[in-house]
Order: sequence, then C-alpha cells, then structure tokens
Amino acid sequence: MGDEHVKKASILSIGNELLNGRTIDTNAAYIAGRLRTISLPVVSVHSVSDEEAAIERALALATGEADVVVATGGLGPTDDDVTRQAFAGFLGVKLVLRPELLEKVKQFFDRRGIEMPARNSIQACIPRGAAAIENEMGTAPGIRAQKDGKRLFALPGVPTEMRHMLDTQVLPELRPLVSGQAIAVRRLKCFGAGESRIAEMIGDAMRRGRNPLVNCTVHTGIISLEVVATAADRAEAENMAEREERALRTLLGKLVYGAGDQTLAEVVGEGLVRTGRTLAVAESCTGGLLAELITDIPGSSRYFTYGWVTYSNEAKCRELEVSREMIDTHGAVSEQVAQAMAQGARRKAGTDYAIAITGIAGPGGGNEQKPVGLVYIAVDNRDGTDTSRYVFSFDRSSVRLRAAQTALNTLRLKLDLTGPVQI
Amino acid sequence: MGDEHVKKASILSIGNELLNGRTIDTNAAYIAGRLRTISLPVVSVHSVSDEEAAIERALALATGEADVVVATGGLGPTDDDVTRQAFAGFLGVKLVLRPELLEKVKQFFDRRGIEMPARNSIQACIPRGAAAIENEMGTAPGIRAQKDGKRLFALPGVPTEMRHMLDTQVLPELRPLVSGQAIAVRRLKCFGAGESRIAEMIGDAMRRGRNPLVNCTVHTGIISLEVVATAADRAEAENMAEREERALRTLLGKLVYGAGDQTLAEVVGEGLVRTGRTLAVAESCTGGLLAELITDIPGSSRYFTYGWVTYSNEAKCRELEVSREMIDTHGAVSEQVAQAMAQGARRKAGTDYAIAITGIAGPGGGNEQKPVGLVYIAVDNRDGTDTSRYVFSFDRSSVRLRAAQTALNTLRLKLDLTGPVQI
Repeated sequence: MGDEHVKKASILSIGNELLNGRTIDTNAAYIAGRLRTISLPVVSVHSVSDEEAAIERALALATGEADVVVATGGLGPTDDDVTRQAFAGFLGVKLVLRPELLEKVKQFFDRRGIEMPARNSIQACIPRGAAAIENEMGTAPGIRAQKDGKRLFALPGVPTEMRHMLDTQVLPELRPLVSGQAIAVRRLKCFGAGESRIAEMIGDAMRRGRNPLVNCTVHTGIISLEVVATAADRAEAENMAEREERALRTLLGKLVYGAGDQTLAEVVGEGLVRTGRTLAVAESCTGGLLAELITDIPGSSRYFTYGWVTYSNEAKCRELEVSREMIDTHGAVSEQVAQAMAQGARRKAGTDYAIAITGIAGPGGGNEQKPVGLVYIAVDNRDGTDTSRYVFSFDRSSVRLRAAQTALNTLRLKLDLTGPVQI
Repeated sequence: MGDEHVKKASILSIGNELLNGRTIDTNAAYIAGRLRTISLPVVSVHSVSDEEAAIERALALATGEADVVVATGGLGPTDDDVTRQAFAGFLGVKLVLRPELLEKVKQFFDRRGIEMPARNSIQACIPRGAAAIENEMGTAPGIRAQKDGKRLFALPGVPTEMRHMLDTQVLPELRPLVSGQAIAVRRLKCFGAGESRIAEMIGDAMRRGRNPLVNCTVHTGIISLEVVATAADRAEAENMAEREERALRTLLGKLVYGAGDQTLAEVVGEGLVRTGRTLAVAESCTGGLLAELITDIPGSSRYFTYGWVTYSNEAKCRELEVSREMIDTHGAVSEQVAQAMAQGARRKAGTDYAIAITGIAGPGGGNEQKPVGLVYIAVDNRDGTDTSRYVFSFDRSSVRLRAAQTALNTLRLKLDLTGPVQI
C-alpha cells in the first residue's frame, strides 16, 4: 500500500485564547488520538485566531494536506465566534438559518427555564448545502460539509461537547473512509543512553518512508521509540509492529525498560512486588523527588516504607548515622557519604534495598573539583553497596530529575528484570 | 495604533510526536507567552510532521500571516529531523556545513568525554546565508534567516534549550521591531478559592473588550489572573496594568499569594528567609512531594533541613515518635496522627516550623468514614499545632498535589506575610 493512498487528517484549532501563551490546546491531542484509533493519521494541527480570513487560509492549507479536516472552536453565540462564517466563505456559499436547528437551540434553553438570548439564533445557521452535527450537550450544533472530495467538520471548542460529537457522529462517519488502511502502534521506553546512541544502535529503523516507521522522542531523559506500522488490514499491521518491536528489543537490550506509558518507577515497583522485596530511600539534592516518583504509583506502600530527605549535614548524621568525620573528610557530596547514607537507610528501615542520592543540584554550590551537576548514587542490599558518580547537565530541575531517574534505573538493572516482556 | 501596523508572529511546531495525540505542545504556549512580553502577538500556531514539504508549506502560510516566524523542533541529529533542510528549501538555498559550528558540536561531546557520533555533524549545517543561533545547553544550534523582510527562526524542540535561546537571543533581536506597540502584562497568582468565586469577587474585570482585560486560568489549583493592558506606548500600558493589579489585590486580599510565575514554595521560602526561620516536613500520602516542591527552590537549604517520608505506620512510630496506640485508636489518617507527626518532626529536627500531611491519595484505601481524598494537614510551631481536615477531589495525583499546595498555603498564612507586595 503506497503512502499516497493513505487517507490523512488535519486539525484546526480556532480561538484567540489558544494564542496567548496561557492556554494549552488539549483538544487537538484528543482528536489526534481518537482519529488514530480508526487508523486515520493526523498530518498537521493549525491553531488560528477567531478571524474569518485566518480560518479560511487554514482551511485551504489543511484541505491541501489532508482528506479530512476537523475544526474546533468559534461556534459560540458571541461576536468573536466566526467559524460558521469562515466555513461558508471557504465553501463559497451563504449561511442559512435552519428552523429545525433554531428549534433545538430554543429547547436547550427551555429545558433550563431560560428564554433563548437573541444572539443564540446565530447558532442555528449553517452554510448552505452543509449538514448539522447534533450537539446533545450544548447549544452549538456542528457543521459537516464536503469540498472537492475533502470532508470538513466543525465542532465546538468545549471539550465535553466536542468529544461526545466526535465519538458519536464524526468517527462513525469516517470509519468507512479508512477501511483499507490500518495503523498499528507500539511504544518502547528506554533509559540509559542518548538519542544519538540509540539511533546508531537501531540502524536504519528510523529511515524516512520505511514501514514500519520508528519515531524517536526524548522527554526528561526518557527516550520513547514509537513504531508505526501501516498495512491494508489490522492483523497485518499488528504483525508488522510486533516483529519490529521484537527486533528493537533485541538491538537495545536492557536500555528498554518498558512499553506504552510505563515510567521507571512503575517498572521498578512491579519488579519489587514480583520479587517481594522492599525499598527505602535517602535523598539529599533530589529533596524528596525520588520518593515522590516512587509513591506516585498506586500501591507503592507494598514495597516502599521509609524515605529521608536529609538536606542538612546534621540530618545525614542524626537520621542516617553518617559520621561527622566522614563528611568533614570527604564532603557531603562524595562516594563515601552516598554509600553511608544508603547503608544507614537500609539498616534503619530494615528493607531489602535502599537508594541514596547526594549531589549538587545548583545553581550555586559548585566548584572546580565538585561542579554543579555532580551526583553520587548508591544502591545498597545484603550483598553490598554499588556507588556511581555522575555529572548531570543544565539546570537545577534537570539535575534533580536525571539523578532520581538514574537512581531508579540503577535499581531496575540490579533487580535484574530480565527482559521487559515479563514485566 | 491601527491594527495593520501591528507586527505579528506565527509559531511552527515541528515533530511527528505532536500529531499522534500523545504529546501536548507546551513549547508553542511558552513562545506565545514570551513574545507577548515584548508586545508581539501570535496570530497562529502550525504543528506539522517531520516532513520537508509540510514544513515548507507551513512556512509559506506563516510568513503570509505574520512578520516573524518562530519554529521549534526537528533539529536533532537523526534522519527524522528535517527542519534544516526545509528551511533551506523554503529559502531556496543549499545547506552548508559550517566548520565553527562543527567545532562547537564536537566540544559539547568532548566535555562529556564522548566522541561525537558521525551523524551529529548534520547539526553543524545551516542554510547558506542564514546565521546560527548559539545553543549553550545542547548540540543543535538554531537558525536565523530572513525572507522578503520576514524574520525566520528555528530553535530546537527540547524545552530547556529552546527557552534559553529564545530568551537570550531571539527576543533581544525582535524587540526593536515592535517599538510603537505596547502591551503590558501582569500576572497575579491566587490560592484558596475556586475560579467562580474569584470571578464573582473581581466583578466585571473579565468582561470581553475591556482594556485592561483580565484573563483567568486555573492550573492544578493555582488560579492565575492575567492583566493585559494595551496602549500606544509602554509607559501608558504599564500604568494601566499597574492600576488594575492594585485594584485586584485589594479585592482579593490574602487569596493573592504572589505575582508572575511565583510558586507557593517560593513565596513561603522567601518568607522563611526573611524571618530567619527553619522548616521540617513529615509526609505520608504526599510521599515526598511537599519536600520536593520546597527543595525545588534554589537556596532552600537555608531554611529546609529535614524531611521524612513515613509511608508505613512503623516509620511514623520509629522516626517521628508517633505512638502505636494512637495509630491503633484513631488510624494513621487522623487529626491526632497528623498533629503528632508535625510535633515529632519539629522536635527531632529542631526547626521553627514543621508541616505534616497524612491522608488517603487513592485510588484504593478509602471507606465511608475515611474516603479517598481525605487529608489532614498539621503545622506546628512553638505556639502550638494547627490541624485541618480536607477532602480533595479526583485522582491520586490531584489529591497529592492539592494536599502539598494546601500545606504550603497554610504555612504562608501562618507566617503572616502581610501583602504579597512586600514578598
């Protein structure tokens, strides 16, 4: 199946509030996710202001890129809602008042015991020749139209209304369109190497135009590889994705820690539950972040019992029995202190494992010997303590997050969860 | 000031991951917000896949709509990063390898003691005639170009890199472009009441078309009121915004905890520093989140010394000297235990204040008497302990975050920071 036969969609997000830097457009991601469930990939999202000309330009671009355009927003009753007018303009027709739609808008207010404000009658207007999409949850019906074989939809911007209309009316209409194309998706989560290194390891899997295609994204040190297989039917697409996933797992080995949306804390937690082991943590520079990531997982109380945030030297000595002399000799940020913190935490908590982190998160506190970003991570169990030294980069938040993730990854590797397939 | 003379910007977000429904584009909102601080409004955001033709089409549309185009993403070293190529294509020039850029990319790897992977040399290529934007935090330099009087910028998609380059290099270059139009923005941060209540309190300030306009957004319980004043010159706009800010502060009183991007932890930290007081925390259901929010603030070691994550009952007894009988009688989630945790933490840490949180974050663990979301927060100082009961809503993450924020807000009010202006 050549790429040129794959039907595609484009999303139009309409509204000034999307452009002021304060509102994050979550509708577009929702629509893209839902369209993908019916194997209709989204090739672009255009966010424009409530201006007829801008919306018309975006419609022209979107219909050039895609077979289906789903617009949201600008169907309200106020003067700044002009999506209807822009659709009419783009289709080259006039807006017409549809009495049956007006009746429904009126009924919506009647049910609430309110008289319909006059301005709401605009919501009963749709472009001549277009059809309405019923809105059971609000006053604004949507619009369904065609131009040059392209399907156009306009939905309200209110998420609950939009979602309901998309799921119950738009997706069912689109499904027959994509019946000869299926997309299967797999996601592998990796930690412990950079993007370039992983790209090298997986060879040409990321080459453009390949099928399955592998996309690589990095977020806070976690590398996600997304496998997208396209085929004429679902079984074939799933098969292709499955084979590709297995190939990637073989190439990447233990760098792959999980799949889908799994976090490192989740995988470590599952490993601890499965092996019936328990964990305590002692943190300095991460200041509670490691404990927070661990306890973010529901049910973490089965394996996590104690955490210390020993932010001062005194706290390290008094709570974790680190010796004052050791801190004076080696400094609080040292291999020795990390090791002593982990041992002290495990001894006091009586757990199978303890992780300790000490470092310099910055922006202040660094020097030539011990730069900002220097972090020691120790993992202690009955067999002894492994301590490693890292220098993490950039800002305070990045250093802290990378340190906490690396600590989790160290424990993951120590737990020897052979192959994430079993997780 | 006629609208036709107002300079405008368009944002291009580049990356397949933005179109798959899994990733929410936060870069676009950040850029829009920053451009607004220099009075450059954003008229559109176009998100396209990592495809040269798609990027070129979007560049054509964006330069038609705006005077400035800021693109992010697609500057990585892998095959699916094609923003450089698309910029070259749009500009009608070839990509050229710039030795001085290659040197910088190599140095980036050298500093980490790694040899530069061969594929990273693509990051030293930029379109002929364009300039590079230096990237101090990563390997990919950005691109700065002009076409038909329009300014084009390409920045990496990694938020830390993009933000730094935007702030230090792109905004300074754009500032002269927008003299003659002025937008002044103020942001007030509020905690302790819902959006509707705050809207009621501030009367018609949020009416559309008003100048200054007040926008209200809610994010994780924090209500941000944004005042936007528009005028022909900066002094006038700043004056209008200033007056509006003062009026809002009077109406909202102690609900306003800060301004700009201030967090509750920052405001509390400043209050502790100013009064020379210290803080310890003892957490159960928040599992380290409160300590993490506190220590996220640089310099927090001046006032924060000890934190305990007493996730098990045993940990509460052994670390904080909560009595076993109290837990047996009242349960670990009770007013009594919260109070005892706070007192134990302050006694052991020797601080001026201690905060304790115990609750049921869910999804499991609730019952009729003690539902999911039930949280007790205690703040102890030499004058005694204040303990309050809350039932927070929705999911585990929301309960935990709301509990930690409410704990910080309780301490803020107790510190009696009279009026956030002094903070």
